[in-house]
Amino acid sequence: MQTRATNLNRLLAPSSIAVVGASASADKAGHQALVALARFDGEVFAINPRASEVLGRPGFASLSALGRPVDLVVFAIPAQACPAAVREAIECGCGGGLIVGGGFAESGAAGAALQEQLAAALAPSTFRLLGPNTAGFVNKPASVTASFVAGADRIPEGDVAVVAQSAGVCLTVSFLLGQLGYGVSLGVGLGNGIDVDAADVLEFLAEQPSTKAIALHLEGVPRGRRLFETLRKITPHKPVAVLTVGQHDVGEFARSHTGNLIGSYALRVSALRQAGAVVVESTVELAAAAAVLSSNRLPPRLSPGIGVLTAQAGPGLLILERLKSRGVAVPALAAHTIERISQCLPPMTYLKNPVDTGRPSESFSKVLSALAGDESIDAIAVFALSEPAALRPEEVLPHVSAACRKPIAFGTLGPPEETSAAARTLRGHGIYVAESPEALAHAATVLALDATLRARVAREESSTTAPSVGETPRERHDEHAAKILLQSLGIPTPRRAVCASHDEARAAFRDLEKPVVVKLLASEILHKTEVGGVRLGIADTESLHRALEHIDAIPIQSPRRYLIEEMAPPGLELIVGAVRDPSFGPSVMVGLGGTFAEALKDTVLRLSPLSRSAALEMLDELRASTILDGFRGSAPLDRHAIADVIVALGSLLHADATITEIEINPLRVHAGGVLALDALVV
Amino acid sequence: MQTRATNLNRLLAPSSIAVVGASASADKAGHQALVALARFDGEVFAINPRASEVLGRPGFASLSALGRPVDLVVFAIPAQACPAAVREAIECGCGGGLIVGGGFAESGAAGAALQEQLAAALAPSTFRLLGPNTAGFVNKPASVTASFVAGADRIPEGDVAVVAQSAGVCLTVSFLLGQLGYGVSLGVGLGNGIDVDAADVLEFLAEQPSTKAIALHLEGVPRGRRLFETLRKITPHKPVAVLTVGQHDVGEFARSHTGNLIGSYALRVSALRQAGAVVVESTVELAAAAAVLSSNRLPPRLSPGIGVLTAQAGPGLLILERLKSRGVAVPALAAHTIERISQCLPPMTYLKNPVDTGRPSESFSKVLSALAGDESIDAIAVFALSEPAALRPEEVLPHVSAACRKPIAFGTLGPPEETSAAARTLRGHGIYVAESPEALAHAATVLALDATLRARVAREESSTTAPSVGETPRERHDEHAAKILLQSLGIPTPRRAVCASHDEARAAFRDLEKPVVVKLLASEILHKTEVGGVRLGIADTESLHRALEHIDAIPIQSPRRYLIEEMAPPGLELIVGAVRDPSFGPSVMVGLGGTFAEALKDTVLRLSPLSRSAALEMLDELRASTILDGFRGSAPLDRHAIADVIVALGSLLHADATITEIEINPLRVHAGGVLALDALVV
Repeated sequence: MQTRATNLNRLLAPSSIAVVGASASADKAGHQALVALARFDGEVFAINPRASEVLGRPGFASLSALGRPVDLVVFAIPAQACPAAVREAIECGCGGGLIVGGGFAESGAAGAALQEQLAAALAPSTFRLLGPNTAGFVNKPASVTASFVAGADRIPEGDVAVVAQSAGVCLTVSFLLGQLGYGVSLGVGLGNGIDVDAADVLEFLAEQPSTKAIALHLEGVPRGRRLFETLRKITPHKPVAVLTVGQHDVGEFARSHTGNLIGSYALRVSALRQAGAVVVESTVELAAAAAVLSSNRLPPRLSPGIGVLTAQAGPGLLILERLKSRGVAVPALAAHTIERISQCLPPMTYLKNPVDTGRPSESFSKVLSALAGDESIDAIAVFALSEPAALRPEEVLPHVSAACRKPIAFGTLGPPEETSAAARTLRGHGIYVAESPEALAHAATVLALDATLRARVAREESSTTAPSVGETPRERHDEHAAKILLQSLGIPTPRRAVCASHDEARAAFRDLEKPVVVKLLASEILHKTEVGGVRLGIADTESLHRALEHIDAIPIQSPRRYLIEEMAPPGLELIVGAVRDPSFGPSVMVGLGGTFAEALKDTVLRLSPLSRSAALEMLDELRASTILDGFRGSAPLDRHAIADVIVALGSLLHADATITEIEINPLRVHAGGVLALDALVV
Repeated sequence: MQTRATNLNRLLAPSSIAVVGASASADKAGHQALVALARFDGEVFAINPRASEVLGRPGFASLSALGRPVDLVVFAIPAQACPAAVREAIECGCGGGLIVGGGFAESGAAGAALQEQLAAALAPSTFRLLGPNTAGFVNKPASVTASFVAGADRIPEGDVAVVAQSAGVCLTVSFLLGQLGYGVSLGVGLGNGIDVDAADVLEFLAEQPSTKAIALHLEGVPRGRRLFETLRKITPHKPVAVLTVGQHDVGEFARSHTGNLIGSYALRVSALRQAGAVVVESTVELAAAAAVLSSNRLPPRLSPGIGVLTAQAGPGLLILERLKSRGVAVPALAAHTIERISQCLPPMTYLKNPVDTGRPSESFSKVLSALAGDESIDAIAVFALSEPAALRPEEVLPHVSAACRKPIAFGTLGPPEETSAAARTLRGHGIYVAESPEALAHAATVLALDATLRARVAREESSTTAPSVGETPRERHDEHAAKILLQSLGIPTPRRAVCASHDEARAAFRDLEKPVVVKLLASEILHKTEVGGVRLGIADTESLHRALEHIDAIPIQSPRRYLIEEMAPPGLELIVGAVRDPSFGPSVMVGLGGTFAEALKDTVLRLSPLSRSAALEMLDELRASTILDGFRGSAPLDRHAIADVIVALGSLLHADATITEIEINPLRVHAGGVLALDALVV
């Protein structure tokens, strides 16, 4: 019985392959596809209406004529012919297919229609399709090069899987891995990704023993929540590094590329991190991150410590600065560690963390062992310019790393003829070798980040209970109703009264603490302030009267009501919201309120559900996070109360499928807690 | 007649060298220094009290015994012996010296005292000293390796000078240049830099024909204004790229390294850019930037346009995103360019900018020529994975670049045995070859930035007149006096009156537009608001009375006066200031006012004097710059008025040497102009 999962295995690790459109003409894709399969030792069939043999492979007029289902069909034919060919492959019971050519959604309306025909053909079946508009894939352990891109068969073999939206990026990262001394297990270009997407390939890779780490490249992510759930299952067992685009306005070009919309970069990055993936910012960083993680991972730990040992202070300073800029802990060493190190080094060297040995001497190994032995250190970054007469890193580092059972990354530079053999030896011992101070800092950052994110994933697994929200009120079309909803979530709101007349307003005014705010309550008015529907600081009955008259002058259709509300104590204004993202589902947001803050875009996002700890981390990520520690001499603000509001709004979206968006703006935060001053529910 | 300048030439390009502390023992610095000089074809002398010959070089007991002045003295002796040895070298008329060892200011009080003795010896002479605490320098065209660092003699020769505070960084960048296929003309480590500093070496390099570009690494900059002036003279003729540290808290480690304080990173970076230097963020970027600029520069232009041509859309998207993130213009192409390109490419490709060719074909050269011919394009970034059967970049690119006279940078990846020969050929034609999409974007960014900064330097030269500020009032110890000073600079302030009694206050109140602010005026109170010395929104005489009584309750020593001031129209609050930096001299600052903005650190700095255009660019660099275009539906704010305030405050510091700092906080900005609401003068 074939399932979608087993058919994906057939596609990516086939024992038999048919090339539809196989050709003896060297300029045809169907020729290149056959040539690329030269080293594959399974069965290969050439499908061509007019040839009984192509390039030494047995030829058949059609997949049906072949008479038996193959695992993988490579469709090297024009776009218009693809839907019929895919239908035939499905009827024959083939496992999966690959459409290398373009001419689909990325190219306009006619192509989009063809892509829809493909999707319609696939829908009722378990047949899997990679592409269209992809250069294909290589599976090194299986000797499959299902790609017609030049150079694809010369990608070096190794432990890292490269899964990329773009075939060009897949090859770029693969060659970069080769330059770093690593190689590729599986390399996949997803192209338009109408069936097989990143999450599918990740599930395949989770079970593939030859893959030790995964490098992922994403443009748009149409099924974000599924990718998130898949990643979260995989990252505890296999490390994943991700590069994604869309931080800047590149949408039009991106759409032309794979026909995908880009979506919110910030939400995507937050979701990827929340799922335990290390997000990087360039192809070089992606290759390096996957390479580092393919041989080393720290145990999950919220704030792992990096020890820095350098033989040259200048590069050491660059390493330290880079680590600090990435928020990596470079902890102070224990007194007994400093004592041990000081016995090995001349007095003028810097003995804290970084440890600066000055030029390396025979004591280097002892200093390194002492640093590695410190309890606060989880991994060590060592930098030393090549000086074989003074230090042989290929002898010292593997020895110390094995003894202390902590990963070491090594940064060095020198004449290539001097450094390359040592680098090979070090890599053989699982020690990553970086060729600049900043590349070394990146390697250490990746190790630390991977450990932090995994610790967070584990914490969320254990501490995020299924969101429990009681029955929520159905009425929510005005501010008062929205505030009742917030109260049902345990979110404090100001004391208030809804009044239908001046008399009721005066009575309410007597009961409430002065001064009050008087607001127009009318579901048809979305922005009360702009029509003059909010009167602040009403302290006496005469002001109340004037305020009510002002509000009476605003023309509305619905019955006129007034919201009389106690003024909130002064404090900081935040925006807290939850929204149902079309791709990633329920997500929450916190940001500074007010005009300036909006212009500064100081907001942080997360997928919901999330724990209170995760919500507290969101507050730490605000650029203006120090404000929460107290501003204008005030006491520290109640971070826990803010975190609880964030968690509650997220939970609401899980509990009530009719709500697509809720925003508290502003949430007034003061030393004693929080107060939702206005809210909008969609 | 030897001057400090001619002696620096003798030091860095010597014809005769003496090694003080020359030794036959292989573990001594004085041995390594002699060995490193093996290829030098000038005279070399060994100074050693007990040897008439060392390693084949003639030996003398002392510099005096040598009997003639050498150009360069290498001091390979302990720190304590250095002051006397330097004095002897000065007496002998030597040109300059180099102290490789440490043990000076970087190592504590005793070392600092030695360093002061060195400085005292140097002060009355024209003798130049490099170091102490440096690994020395290499001058490739002169075959001088005045360094005992292993590997220094194996740095590849080329067109780029590397000037680094740290010898370790000097070597790092030199080897990175080698990896990129470039090499070094002069490589200098400045170390503690008590005499020869970066500005000195830059002046030497300005006249050195073998240097085409300069890579500069800075930690602390004690004489910032001199460095700024020197750079500004050099960058129009020779490109300079800079890497500097201190963006994060690394001060303690940095001090231990070269004994230098780090100072303000933000001011340093602003000053370097203002002087026309391209500031980068890593050693890899530094090497690449200098390499790019060593073979190509655009003409000065405020916003040069980059054309992007890619054979793979995925990497093209990464290139575009990186260029956008760096603010580089990727302009739309002219209709006739698109028309020309569309004739060469299949219909589904993207024909704007970036231009996506799909897989390269024989039309690639035509497409590139069309793109390069567009009027808005100043340089082109081309990316194509290696596919020699489809595209031979080493044939196509030099041809087009020569024909269009515009620089091309090329990004590629592939099996190294396939790409390296083509890369060598391309470099020979002045085409930079980058090995990742982002490295290609960096190369294009560097070309664009260098052109922009040079255009700005030229504009400032022509438009910044010597600051002319009339006689400024001497009295400035309170807010009113400070505001009179601002008025003398043409900066608007609110209408106000200074009153010594309640009667005077009431009279003033009658004359001013209501509501007013009532403030305590007392030079002893620096923060009026905190003691309750500011009463806002006073609209009637009774409120005035209450306000005056409130202020009377504040205990002060000096005579009590009141400042009665008209309220400013609502608007945005900025902070504008000028300060005399100990290193860089007069500098100006603009930032958002208010508590949140302070926490967000959204401020921009520049050295003064500066033009109004430069001040306007400061506003563009604010993260919240869009607020100035109008917020909460208001009209755009008056950017020119803000710029004039910035320029004026800077000019004040040039005109009046007694002022070390002036800050307007807040400067209220409204649609009609600006108003300085409070000011502080130091």
